[in-house]
Amino acid sequence: MRAAEVLARCATLDRFTSLPRGLERVHLSKEHASANAQAGRWMEQAGLRTWQDAAGNQWGRREGREPGLPALVLGSHLDTVTDAGSFDGMLGVVMAIAVAERLGARVGRLPFALEVVGFSDEEGTRFGKALLGSQAVAGTWDDDWFELRDKDATTLRQAFEEFGLDPRRVGDAARSPASMVGYLEAHIEQGPYLEEADASLGYVTLIAGARRFRLSVLGEARHAGGTPYERRRDALVGASEAIVLVEEMAKERGCIATVGRIAVTPGGINVIPGRADLSLDLRAPTDEDRDAMWVDLLARIRELCRRRGLRLDVVESHHAPAVHCAPWLQDAVVAGIATTGDTAPMGLWSRAGHDAMAIGAVADVGMLFVRCGDGVSHHADESVREVDVEAGLDAFEATVLQVAAVVEARG
Amino acid sequence: MRAAEVLARCATLDRFTSLPRGLERVHLSKEHASANAQAGRWMEQAGLRTWQDAAGNQWGRREGREPGLPALVLGSHLDTVTDAGSFDGMLGVVMAIAVAERLGARVGRLPFALEVVGFSDEEGTRFGKALLGSQAVAGTWDDDWFELRDKDATTLRQAFEEFGLDPRRVGDAARSPASMVGYLEAHIEQGPYLEEADASLGYVTLIAGARRFRLSVLGEARHAGGTPYERRRDALVGASEAIVLVEEMAKERGCIATVGRIAVTPGGINVIPGRADLSLDLRAPTDEDRDAMWVDLLARIRELCRRRGLRLDVVESHHAPAVHCAPWLQDAVVAGIATTGDTAPMGLWSRAGHDAMAIGAVADVGMLFVRCGDGVSHHADESVREVDVEAGLDAFEATVLQVAAVVEARG
Repeated sequence: MRAAEVLARCATLDRFTSLPRGLERVHLSKEHASANAQAGRWMEQAGLRTWQDAAGNQWGRREGREPGLPALVLGSHLDTVTDAGSFDGMLGVVMAIAVAERLGARVGRLPFALEVVGFSDEEGTRFGKALLGSQAVAGTWDDDWFELRDKDATTLRQAFEEFGLDPRRVGDAARSPASMVGYLEAHIEQGPYLEEADASLGYVTLIAGARRFRLSVLGEARHAGGTPYERRRDALVGASEAIVLVEEMAKERGCIATVGRIAVTPGGINVIPGRADLSLDLRAPTDEDRDAMWVDLLARIRELCRRRGLRLDVVESHHAPAVHCAPWLQDAVVAGIATTGDTAPMGLWSRAGHDAMAIGAVADVGMLFVRCGDGVSHHADESVREVDVEAGLDAFEATVLQVAAVVEARG
Repeated sequence: MRAAEVLARCATLDRFTSLPRGLERVHLSKEHASANAQAGRWMEQAGLRTWQDAAGNQWGRREGREPGLPALVLGSHLDTVTDAGSFDGMLGVVMAIAVAERLGARVGRLPFALEVVGFSDEEGTRFGKALLGSQAVAGTWDDDWFELRDKDATTLRQAFEEFGLDPRRVGDAARSPASMVGYLEAHIEQGPYLEEADASLGYVTLIAGARRFRLSVLGEARHAGGTPYERRRDALVGASEAIVLVEEMAKERGCIATVGRIAVTPGGINVIPGRADLSLDLRAPTDEDRDAMWVDLLARIRELCRRRGLRLDVVESHHAPAVHCAPWLQDAVVAGIATTGDTAPMGLWSRAGHDAMAIGAVADVGMLFVRCGDGVSHHADESVREVDVEAGLDAFEATVLQVAAVVEARG
């Protein structure tokens, strides 16, 4: 299978969307079911046996040279953000299926089974918590998450049931370390560095761990006209100062911090906001840099709230440690890329989170990055070049064979 | 009728709410219809003939010493903001009805008819445009407003029809200058100045005119992790800088400016906001101060957007000139307050808008302010003291008789 077909399949998946225009496919939605079914059909065409696991992840497997061997798992996710592009996640799943198809009967001679997975939730769009699919597989699931609610107040538990899954069985999705040789994920870079280096492909050294917080700034709603400044406790002005500070501090420290959501109540044109709720996503090259920034940032936001007579409530909604790609899988990806002619490929740390982070708890992981247009991601304008996908397929297939050689050599 | 009954009636109106807890009663809602019906019953008990006009305002009238005389109109509004208090608007309507009831048959000896009105929309909560009820009465209605939409995308035209009103007949609600002697409105102060001066009542000298804008800051949605700062065009950070600037500039210049609404898209935790929409409400003691601030503020917001690679779209949604209360009606209110023992009452400019602003286009207007607790308004904690309402009823009734004396003296 060639790149043109891979891109056509990504376009096919775009049809499973909840938006009249644009792409949004969230965890446990009917679009999710349709995407799983479509991916499952492609897996079967590639000669894989398929199943959907107890957490809504779509799997396919072909046995290696004997039945029941540990598996090398290739995959990524099938869910999206709102107004998403066509490649974040999906490209990796479709490339994994393509590699399985290209290897075909050769898989039967490999020293491991080959599995492909399309994870059910990586973005956390629906329930505000990321990596739900891959964490179930990693066995790091927390049953408290079943009480999370989407914007319509549906709990994750209800969503499981409506999707036909039994929440009590979610543990069945967990995989043992012994069942996996490793996990490899192809993904668009979602940043500009490969493009700046004029390279099609890169390998990932580590995936930075994000911490996410919900900040609630609490003031007092009052009449916008009648309340003089000395009596105002305007939650939105306080929140705005905090947002400007977040950017300023992250730039100073080489971190990346984003406020992607904000909501104010009561939200009247002529009413001082009494409350502002915002999200914060914080990343850095090391967990230490990130945590040090958070300590200082929180102190300064508390200080500005105190000065303005505002209260601050903080809830940490996500906390992921940085995950290092296994050196031997980094080497395998480098070797895979080398077969395409780039013998000294670029190594990058991933600022974005990936399913590989969660799977890192239960298996060695490696990642292949594919150049994307202008670093754009999480946007309908996400793009990849056919030539880069072509190179990516060759490299990803060669990486699998390189892993096989290493496993073989281990004996 | 005494203050206790007035307060009980305000509590009765609280029942007509669209919220399970708290008060919200918006234009042309079923709660609006219920509040009109209740106010109409009270008007009839006070001896008034009642009708609902072509813009959804609730009226009552008792003839003066001969039928068909021009009317002295007493009133305020029956709609509310979200999570409103019980008094903003409603206190003025209920006090007007109480004064009509207290005067009773004496109205038949006055040199004018007495009318009471409960305006249908002053806050603009539903359609984002304030004073829809009183502007219909003032004859300053603009048919373009029929295309305004509420948050469910219902147009004002559809809302008229669903309420049983014919949009083509809205002009029938307009009153001629010749049909009115003047308009008097009692209202809670919505500010802290009477309380600070230890006074129950005050008279209004002028009502500052607000200008309102919708600002859209347009950047680019991208992945929160993968996009380095030099490539970010984060609409929310730009909007936040603007919000901080709004406060800073308004304080410097003695203006009052409020951003009460903000919404960002796409609104993902891990997506840089591509767009931020905000409201701006701007007021000042004079129209000149206000307009000068807007010119400078807009220039500085444009400059910060340019610096950040953001676009700015601005729509003016409301523009009201300051309205001066008629000196002879100011004098009548002062005389009315004097009967309660405060012979040198406090004069205030109203930072808040009122129906009197719209009616000022077609009649002389005067306003009586009643002290409220801690200056709180547009909040469930809005409060008035019974003793102040008692004084307010006496003063308002005496004001009507003072107006009668002046009209009589004019001959």
